Amino acid sequence: MDFVRRLERVALAVPDLDPAQAFFESWFGAKFLSEETIEDMGIRYRPFMVGESMLELLQPTRDDSPVAKFLKSNGGPGVHHITLEVDDLDAALAELERRGGRIAHRHTYAPGVSFEGYIWREAFIHPKDAYGVLIHLAEKRPLDDQADNS
Amino acid sequence: MDFVRRLERVALAVPDLDPAQAFFESWFGAKFLSEETIEDMGIRYRPFMVGESMLELLQPTRDDSPVAKFLKSNGGPGVHHITLEVDDLDAALAELERRGGRIAHRHTYAPGVSFEGYIWREAFIHPKDAYGVLIHLAEKRPLDDQADNS
Repeated sequence: MDFVRRLERVALAVPDLDPAQAFFESWFGAKFLSEETIEDMGIRYRPFMVGESMLELLQPTRDDSPVAKFLKSNGGPGVHHITLEVDDLDAALAELERRGGRIAHRHTYAPGVSFEGYIWREAFIHPKDAYGVLIHLAEKRPLDDQADNS
Repeated sequence: MDFVRRLERVALAVPDLDPAQAFFESWFGAKFLSEETIEDMGIRYRPFMVGESMLELLQPTRDDSPVAKFLKSNGGPGVHHITLEVDDLDAALAELERRGGRIAHRHTYAPGVSFEGYIWREAFIHPKDAYGVLIHLAEKRPLDDQADNS
């Protein structure tokens, strides 16, 4: 079972969203989507397109958040995580664990909470297990699907 | 002019290709392509597919190479660069400079040298100019195109 559909995006941690957005717009013609806040993760983030691909900028909302700690330990901004999209998170995690993989954290949202027009289900693999890369596994279900299933 | 076509790949620096390949194969079902060596950059690299997306692993061939220095300064493996594919490198760099962008390094290959079945033309934007991310701008021309133009 190949449970990864694609590299969905690359997320960059920055101390301040506005100048970073201005940089990616002016140098690369990035098209920014709406900002989202995930309070329990301590982030504000702005997805953006460069050509046909998606990236995002992350800014911490508080000093004790994981992204704030990353900025400190990294000595500044940089690649915070990569997102691998899966069709079915439960099936992907079961298969990953069958293969000896380790899930560091599974993040759950309250029913109906959406970001970017999708219901997200997600988990993280710790960088110490994955060659220094924080891997974000995400299942994205369009809000329309949700309505169909209700 | 939107000169970036897409995020073409994410490149991870590792001290040793073999165990890193085994990790991405066993956990994520990665499909590895042939290894390539770029001696003047001091790298051996292995591109791989995860689902429909490409990543690559990089290993330094000598201690004074940029990737060896990255592994040291980063304290281990991690995301080394992201590749943004452009249709025409000359046009992209001219446009980037018109917008105030700075090119740290332009890498040129001898005529006819190819990697992965492509003739590459490429340039790099330094991480200190780009929020901690080394940005690799690349034009890839299939070898078949080259034959058509000769």
